[in-house]
Amino acid sequence: MQNLKMVICYDGTRYSGWQKQGNTANTIQGKIEYLISEITGETVSVNGSGRTDAGVHAMGQVANVQLKSSMEPLELRNRLNALLPEDIAVKEIGEVPLRFHARLSAVGKVYQYRLYVGETKPVFERKQVTVLDNVSSLNVEAMRDGARRLCGIHDFTSFCGNPSFKKSAVRNVTQIEILEEGDELVFRFTGDGFLQNMVRIITGTLIEVGRGALTPEELSLILAAKDRKKAGPMAPAQGLMLMCVRYK
Amino acid sequence: MQNLKMVICYDGTRYSGWQKQGNTANTIQGKIEYLISEITGETVSVNGSGRTDAGVHAMGQVANVQLKSSMEPLELRNRLNALLPEDIAVKEIGEVPLRFHARLSAVGKVYQYRLYVGETKPVFERKQVTVLDNVSSLNVEAMRDGARRLCGIHDFTSFCGNPSFKKSAVRNVTQIEILEEGDELVFRFTGDGFLQNMVRIITGTLIEVGRGALTPEELSLILAAKDRKKAGPMAPAQGLMLMCVRYK
Repeated sequence: MQNLKMVICYDGTRYSGWQKQGNTANTIQGKIEYLISEITGETVSVNGSGRTDAGVHAMGQVANVQLKSSMEPLELRNRLNALLPEDIAVKEIGEVPLRFHARLSAVGKVYQYRLYVGETKPVFERKQVTVLDNVSSLNVEAMRDGARRLCGIHDFTSFCGNPSFKKSAVRNVTQIEILEEGDELVFRFTGDGFLQNMVRIITGTLIEVGRGALTPEELSLILAAKDRKKAGPMAPAQGLMLMCVRYK
Repeated sequence: MQNLKMVICYDGTRYSGWQKQGNTANTIQGKIEYLISEITGETVSVNGSGRTDAGVHAMGQVANVQLKSSMEPLELRNRLNALLPEDIAVKEIGEVPLRFHARLSAVGKVYQYRLYVGETKPVFERKQVTVLDNVSSLNVEAMRDGARRLCGIHDFTSFCGNPSFKKSAVRNVTQIEILEEGDELVFRFTGDGFLQNMVRIITGTLIEVGRGALTPEELSLILAAKDRKKAGPMAPAQGLMLMCVRYK
């Protein structure tokens, strides 16, 4: 038995997200699991570090798979890449201890959200950048002030998109950077983990701060309320990218 | 009468090139000319700085258009961008002297060619990067040596894709840089102008040098032969991008 860790890159535009949903939906996990089974002849389970929503991208999603086959990891990677569609690639592969699990062993994640704030429209990056009205004169300093108030260990129930979520909503967000890069505002989120839709809801709420519809101080009240209705709207999926997953 | 200069960005993947070809082909010039006529009610001619081949991209194509209408340039740009498909954008627009002509006034151009040389495959950049077999261990120093031999004022007939081209094929190529950027080899061409397919044929020939099928010294002989058959194959369109056009 070998346990393989894979780093996977995908353009999520065409997909119903990472997570397999029966046999009908077009998912990244479903595609990879199916092809590994085809190549090795084994029925396998591919464990991702976590779900990504429909339309969300990944530069460095991590998954692991346990195989009875003694196939060389690089051979498996190359055969997978030849069979996968052009918008999914296995960038790295390697053997790890049997106890490694892409989700349970993860200790941190980095997400990036790209918002177009230029005067015209994005062309080459158009599938990875969100275009919204009324974002040409955001107050970036107020957004940074608001972002600082969300960093640290908090109950993020107000920023969770799953109303029936029953487990602990406490997460440690270690950093939210907001960078002005050419025609884009780039948000970088680092933390030990993120709830469903949490990065998109925080981004949508920070945009409301940038527009002046919320004050930075109100973010502390929104956190304390533990009520999704107090936070801002969820930003669209296409600007979001899972950059990397960290392990000990 | 006003003469407007536009800087235009396009993802050429879906198009039959810049240049209008009757009313049937899907071209960038055709789209822009049609929309300016629709918006202003005038029959107009859009002059590009030069053609780009089918599938070639532009970050900074330049075109000019003469209008009787007194419409504000920024209003025209915004209306155009709202009507143009998502893979074409007018990034800049401004009034210039009536004698300005995007092709005749141009004094230089910069092109970039992106070749994927990584171990797996490109995902987000897949429409702007060329993937070829046998490019994982190119001799980049030999390619740079070969590229230096092509710089300067030469007759580039051997690198011209139009066999019935009758005008002077003398061009001044001032620089060919070859940069190793992550999983890509990026070629940057600067010159006073380029013949049809010239950048793609030079790139294809330099790749042959990198593979060891040609020596750098042979590039001087190929130039001197003035014979297209002596040069290497034409590299695919999708890796090529017109970066900018220079004016006095």
